[in-house]
Amino acid sequence: MVLEPLQTSPETLETLVTGVNLLWVLVVTFLIFFMHAGFAMLEAGQVRSKNVANQLTKNLLTWSVGVSVFFVIGAGVSSLVGGGGFSPAFVAENPNDWVGWLFGAVFAMTAATIVSGAVAGRAKLRAYVTYTFLLAAVIYPVVTGITWAGAYISFGGAAFHDFAGGMIVHGMGGIAGLTAAYVLGPRMGRYNEDGSVNVIPGHSLTFAVLGTLILAFGWYGFNVGTAASVFVFTDGSLQLGAFSYVGRVAMTTTIAMAAGAIGAAGVAWAKTGKVDTLYVANGLLAGLVGITAIPDTTSWWGAFLVGGLAGAQLPIVFSFIEKRLQIDDVCAVFPVHGSAGVLGTLMFPFVAAEAPAGGIVNAFIAQVIGVVAIAAWTIVATAAVWGVLKAIGQARVTPEHEQEGLDVSEHGVETYPEFGSGESVVADGGMVSENVRTDGGSKDD
Amino acid sequence: MVLEPLQTSPETLETLVTGVNLLWVLVVTFLIFFMHAGFAMLEAGQVRSKNVANQLTKNLLTWSVGVSVFFVIGAGVSSLVGGGGFSPAFVAENPNDWVGWLFGAVFAMTAATIVSGAVAGRAKLRAYVTYTFLLAAVIYPVVTGITWAGAYISFGGAAFHDFAGGMIVHGMGGIAGLTAAYVLGPRMGRYNEDGSVNVIPGHSLTFAVLGTLILAFGWYGFNVGTAASVFVFTDGSLQLGAFSYVGRVAMTTTIAMAAGAIGAAGVAWAKTGKVDTLYVANGLLAGLVGITAIPDTTSWWGAFLVGGLAGAQLPIVFSFIEKRLQIDDVCAVFPVHGSAGVLGTLMFPFVAAEAPAGGIVNAFIAQVIGVVAIAAWTIVATAAVWGVLKAIGQARVTPEHEQEGLDVSEHGVETYPEFGSGESVVADGGMVSENVRTDGGSKDD
Amino acid sequence: MVLEPLQTSPETLETLVTGVNLLWVLVVTFLIFFMHAGFAMLEAGQVRSKNVANQLTKNLLTWSVGVSVFFVIGAGVSSLVGGGGFSPAFVAENPNDWVGWLFGAVFAMTAATIVSGAVAGRAKLRAYVTYTFLLAAVIYPVVTGITWAGAYISFGGAAFHDFAGGMIVHGMGGIAGLTAAYVLGPRMGRYNEDGSVNVIPGHSLTFAVLGTLILAFGWYGFNVGTAASVFVFTDGSLQLGAFSYVGRVAMTTTIAMAAGAIGAAGVAWAKTGKVDTLYVANGLLAGLVGITAIPDTTSWWGAFLVGGLAGAQLPIVFSFIEKRLQIDDVCAVFPVHGSAGVLGTLMFPFVAAEAPAGGIVNAFIAQVIGVVAIAAWTIVATAAVWGVLKAIGQARVTPEHEQEGLDVSEHGVETYPEFGSGESVVADGGMVSENVRTDGGSKDD
Repeated sequence: MVLEPLQTSPETLETLVTGVNLLWVLVVTFLIFFMHAGFAMLEAGQVRSKNVANQLTKNLLTWSVGVSVFFVIGAGVSSLVGGGGFSPAFVAENPNDWVGWLFGAVFAMTAATIVSGAVAGRAKLRAYVTYTFLLAAVIYPVVTGITWAGAYISFGGAAFHDFAGGMIVHGMGGIAGLTAAYVLGPRMGRYNEDGSVNVIPGHSLTFAVLGTLILAFGWYGFNVGTAASVFVFTDGSLQLGAFSYVGRVAMTTTIAMAAGAIGAAGVAWAKTGKVDTLYVANGLLAGLVGITAIPDTTSWWGAFLVGGLAGAQLPIVFSFIEKRLQIDDVCAVFPVHGSAGVLGTLMFPFVAAEAPAGGIVNAFIAQVIGVVAIAAWTIVATAAVWGVLKAIGQARVTPEHEQEGLDVSEHGVETYPEFGSGESVVADGGMVSENVRTDGGSKDD
Repeated sequence: MVLEPLQTSPETLETLVTGVNLLWVLVVTFLIFFMHAGFAMLEAGQVRSKNVANQLTKNLLTWSVGVSVFFVIGAGVSSLVGGGGFSPAFVAENPNDWVGWLFGAVFAMTAATIVSGAVAGRAKLRAYVTYTFLLAAVIYPVVTGITWAGAYISFGGAAFHDFAGGMIVHGMGGIAGLTAAYVLGPRMGRYNEDGSVNVIPGHSLTFAVLGTLILAFGWYGFNVGTAASVFVFTDGSLQLGAFSYVGRVAMTTTIAMAAGAIGAAGVAWAKTGKVDTLYVANGLLAGLVGITAIPDTTSWWGAFLVGGLAGAQLPIVFSFIEKRLQIDDVCAVFPVHGSAGVLGTLMFPFVAAEAPAGGIVNAFIAQVIGVVAIAAWTIVATAAVWGVLKAIGQARVTPEHEQEGLDVSEHGVETYPEFGSGESVVADGGMVSENVRTDGGSKDD
Repeated sequence: MVLEPLQTSPETLETLVTGVNLLWVLVVTFLIFFMHAGFAMLEAGQVRSKNVANQLTKNLLTWSVGVSVFFVIGAGVSSLVGGGGFSPAFVAENPNDWVGWLFGAVFAMTAATIVSGAVAGRAKLRAYVTYTFLLAAVIYPVVTGITWAGAYISFGGAAFHDFAGGMIVHGMGGIAGLTAAYVLGPRMGRYNEDGSVNVIPGHSLTFAVLGTLILAFGWYGFNVGTAASVFVFTDGSLQLGAFSYVGRVAMTTTIAMAAGAIGAAGVAWAKTGKVDTLYVANGLLAGLVGITAIPDTTSWWGAFLVGGLAGAQLPIVFSFIEKRLQIDDVCAVFPVHGSAGVLGTLMFPFVAAEAPAGGIVNAFIAQVIGVVAIAAWTIVATAAVWGVLKAIGQARVTPEHEQEGLDVSEHGVETYPEFGSGESVVADGGMVSENVRTDGGSKDD
C-alpha cells in the first residue's frame, strides 16, 4: 500500500466530528426516551389495579402532548429566557438541529412524567394534561433557560453545576410532584380521622421493578449521554470532547446506583428487620438521581457517599412526607427525585475529585442558590396551576369515580378484566359490574 | 505537538466510513430486533389469558423460524426478484456482509410478526408457522424485490418512495393480517346471530402499553436507523451520507408518534366521552406507521398532519372492520399497520418539505401504484396460503380447543396458574381443572 | 472547496480510534447491563407468586452489591490472578479506564445473577448476598484471571478459546447455580417420598418470555459487543479491529439463537406432542449460550448446529437434572447456561469456519482443559461457600417461611396484593391464607 498525502481538507475532520457526535446523541436520546416505558411500569406497579390504565394513559399523553408543546413553544421559551431570543424548534436552519431539540425534549419529558406518579389515583385526566402542557411550554423551559441556556446562576466565580439534570430535571419534577400532591390532597382512605396512616399497596411489584431496571438502563443514556460530544474540532484539529472524561461519568453513575440500593436496603433492614423490595428499587433510583447533577466531577468514593446517602434518606423522607406532612405522594417521587436530587446537587463541592472553580464555599453557595431558585419557581408555578384547577373544581375526580377507579370512570376500560376482582368479573370476561367496583372493601383503602 | 503530514492513505477514510457505519447499523439493528419484545407484549396483552402462551410462542417462533428461512432462502429471493440473481445470505464474500443481511432480516421479521396479532386465539400453531415460513421465504422478499432491491415502480419520473417500510413492511403486514383473519373467520362468540358484536377484552392493558413503548423505542432504530449511512466516501473524500438529514427523520418520527396518540385520543373522546387507553397506545403506533414511509422528506407540519390522521383513523377503521366487515382482527393490526401505512405512503407528495421529483401528481400516482401492487400481491399470496390450509382443515383449532384456550391445547401450559380462573386453580397451584375451562361462560366470547 | 494538506498529526487518528471505540463499548455495556432486567423478569416469571419479590430483590442486590465489590476488590483479583498485580478498579490512571472496568463488570454480574435462578424459593437473602459478594470478589475473578487476563490455558499451540464468555460467564454461572441448588436441597413438596416429581409452575409465562426477549436484546451487546475494537491504530495507520469480522459474530449469534428455539421446540413436540412455551424461550437462550464462546469463528452451518443442539439438549438435560439427579434447579439455569455453555465451548474446533490454530485435536483438548478447570473451581468454591452457610444454619429459610413465601417472610411485602389468592386476599389486601399454600399438589403436575 503506497502512502500518499491524504486528499482531503480540514472539512473532513469537521464532518467526522459531526457524524460521530450525531450518532452518539441519537443513541442516547433513544435510551432516554425509553425511560418513559420505565416510568410507566414503575408507576403502574405502584398504583391500585383499578387505576392502572389511567396511569398508563397519563404516561402516554405526557410524552405525546408534552413533546408536541415543547416543539412548538417550550424550546423557544427556553432560548428566550436564556437570552437567545424566541427560537421555536420547528424553525430549524439545518435538519440536524432537530437532533439537539430532541435531545433536549427527552430531558423535558422526564421532568414532566415524574409528576404523574405523585398525583396518581385522584387527579382528573384533563387537569393532568393541562399541567403537562404548561410544564412543557413554560415551567420547565424557564428552569433550563436560567441554567443550561442562560447560565445566570453563579457566586464568587463558582457557577451553578448540574451536569445532567439532577436538580433541573429530577429535583424539579420531584418538587413539582410533591406540590401537586399537596394541593390535590390525599387519596380517599389514605388517612384516618385520628391522623393515622393506611398503606395502599401497589398492585404489582414485578412491574415496579421492571420499570426500575428500564429506568436504570435509560439513565446510562441520561447521564453518560450528557457527555454529548465524542469529539470537538478546535484549532483545526480533532480532539476528544466530553469523551475525555466519559469514563468517570459511567463509573460514578454505576457506583451511585449500586450504593443507593444498598443504602435504602440497609435503612429498611435496620428499621424493620426486613428488606422491602420497593425500597431497594426506589433506592437504586434515588442513587441515580443523587449523582445526576455531578457524575462528571465526583470521585469514586464520593459516588459511594452520594449514592448511599440518597438511598438511605429515601425511607426516612418517605416516612416524613407520609406521616408528618401527610402528603399522599403515591409513587414516592419526592424522596426519589426531589430530595435525592437536591442532596446530590448540594454535595457537589464536597465530593469532587478536584477542587471546584471558585472554591468549595462559593461553589456550595452557588449550588444553594440554584436549588432554591429552581425549587421556588417550581413550587409557585405548580401550586398556581393546580390551585386554579382546584378552585374551578377541575383538579380531582369525584369521590364516586375515585372509589370506582379511574380506569372505568376516565377511560371506560378495565386493565385486568380476567383477574383479581372476584367472581363476577371472571364470569363475564368483560367490564366489571357495579358490585365489583366497591374498591375491595379493604381497611387499607 | 508538532504537526506533520498525516501518514496515511485514502484507504484510511474508507476504513473510517466502514467502521462507523457498521457501528451505527448494528446498534439500530439491535433496536429493531427488540421490537419483537414489543410485539410480544402488545399482542399478549390484547388476548385472553387462556391464549397468552400461544401468542408468545408464535412470537418466539416467528423470529426463530423466520430469520432462519430468510437466511437460507428469503434474502436470495429478494435479490433474485430485484434483478441481482439468487444470492442467498449464507454465501457472503465478507463476514461484514452479514450485517447488511441482518439489517434486512429485522425488517422482514417485523412484517411477519404483525400477522400473528390478527389471527390470535384460533389459528393452529402449525398453520401459523407454515405461513411464517412462506412469508419469510417468498411473500415478503417479493415485495422488497420489486421495491427496495429492484426499484421497478415509478411513474413519469417519480419513483415509489418508501423510506423505512411504511408500506413495504407495515402496510404489507397489516394487509396480510387482515386477509388471514378474514379467511380464518372470527373467534367463537365474537359475533351474535343477529350480527351484533361482542367485545372480548385483552387480559392486560399493562402489557399492551409496555409493548407499545418498547415498539416506539425500537422504532427509532427502524426509522432513524434507515438513515443507515453515517458517512459516505465519494470522490476521494468523506461526507455525511444519510446523516445529512437524519435530524429530520428523528423529528418527524417523534412528532408523528405524538400526533398519532393525540389524534386517536381525540376521536375516542369525541365518540365516547372517555379516553380509551388502548386507542391512545395504538394511535401512537399508528402515528409511527404513518410516518414510516416518509420521515426523510416530510415537513414538521406534515408530520403533525400525517401522524394525527393516522391516529384519528384508527378508531374509525377499527370499528368499520369490526362491525361492517365483521373481520375479527384481534390486535387491530389493520388499522394500526395497514391503513395507517397506506395513508402515510399516499400522503408523501402532499406533505414533503420540498417538491418531490417528477412533481406532485406523478409522485402520487407512483405511490398509488406501489400501494396497489404490494396490497394485491399480499392479499393474493396470503389468501392462497391460508385458503389451502383451511381447505385441508389445518388452519384453525377445534372449537373445543378454542374454548379451552390454545395455551392448554397447543402448548400444554397455563400462563398464569395462580391467577384469575377461580378457586380451583388457586387451590392447587397447577393446571386448570375441567370446570374452569368453560371459557368463562360469557356472552362476550 | 480547496483541498489543502490536512493540518493534523498522527495523534488525530489515535484520538479517532479512542473516541469511536469508547462510544461502541459504552453502548454495548448499557445493553449488557439491561440483561439484568431480562434475568429479573425471566426468573420472576418462573417462581411462585409468593416468592416473586424475593427473586426481584435478589436481582437488584446482585447488581448493587456485586458491582460495588467488583469495583473495590474483584477487578483487582482478576488482574492479580492474571499476572498483572493487584490493581483494583478505583485506582484508574485515566477516567476512561473505568469504561473498561464497567465493560468487565457487566459480564461479571451476568455470571452472578444466573445463580439466583437456581436457588429460588428457599435460599435466605443474606446467604445469597454473601455468595454474591464472594463470587464478585474472588470466584469469578479467578476464572477470568486464568483465562481472559492470564491466558494460561493452552495445549499444543492451541489456546483455550472463549470469545464472549460461553464458559467463563454462562457455563460458570450455570454450574455454580446447579452446585448451590444441590447443596441447598429442593423446595418443599418438589419431590414425593416415592421419588416422583411435582411440577411447581412459575406464576407468569408472560414475564418469563419478556425476560427472554430482553436477554436476547442484551445478548447482542454481550456477543457482538465483545468485538470491542471498532478500530485499531497500528503501524501509524487506522485499521478495523474486531470490526473486521463483526458481521460473523452478529450472524452466528442470530442463527444460533433461532436454532436454539427451534431445537427445543422440536424436542418438546417430539416428546409430548405439544410445544411448551417455556422450552421455546429457554431454548432460544440456550442457543445464545451455546454460541457465546465461539461466535467469532463459527461457520454459518456451525451456528445452526451449535444452536440447534444447545436447544435440543435443554429438555433432555432439564429432565435428567430434575428426575434423576433430583436437583431443584428452579429456573433451569444449568440446562440453559451450564450444559449449553459447555457444549458450545467444546464444539469450537469442529464448527470453525477456518481450521483453528494448533489443529482440531489440540484445540479440542485445550477446550476440555478450560472447561474442566473452570467447572472444577466453580464447583469447589461454590460448594464450600454454601456448605459453610448450610452448616451454620444460614443457607435456607425455615419451613414455615418457605411455605408462607419468601416475600412476606424476608421482605414484608406481597407482590400482588390484589390478585390471585382467593377472596381473603382481595378482602384484606394482605397475606394468602393457609389453604392456598399447598405448592403444587395437582393431578396435572
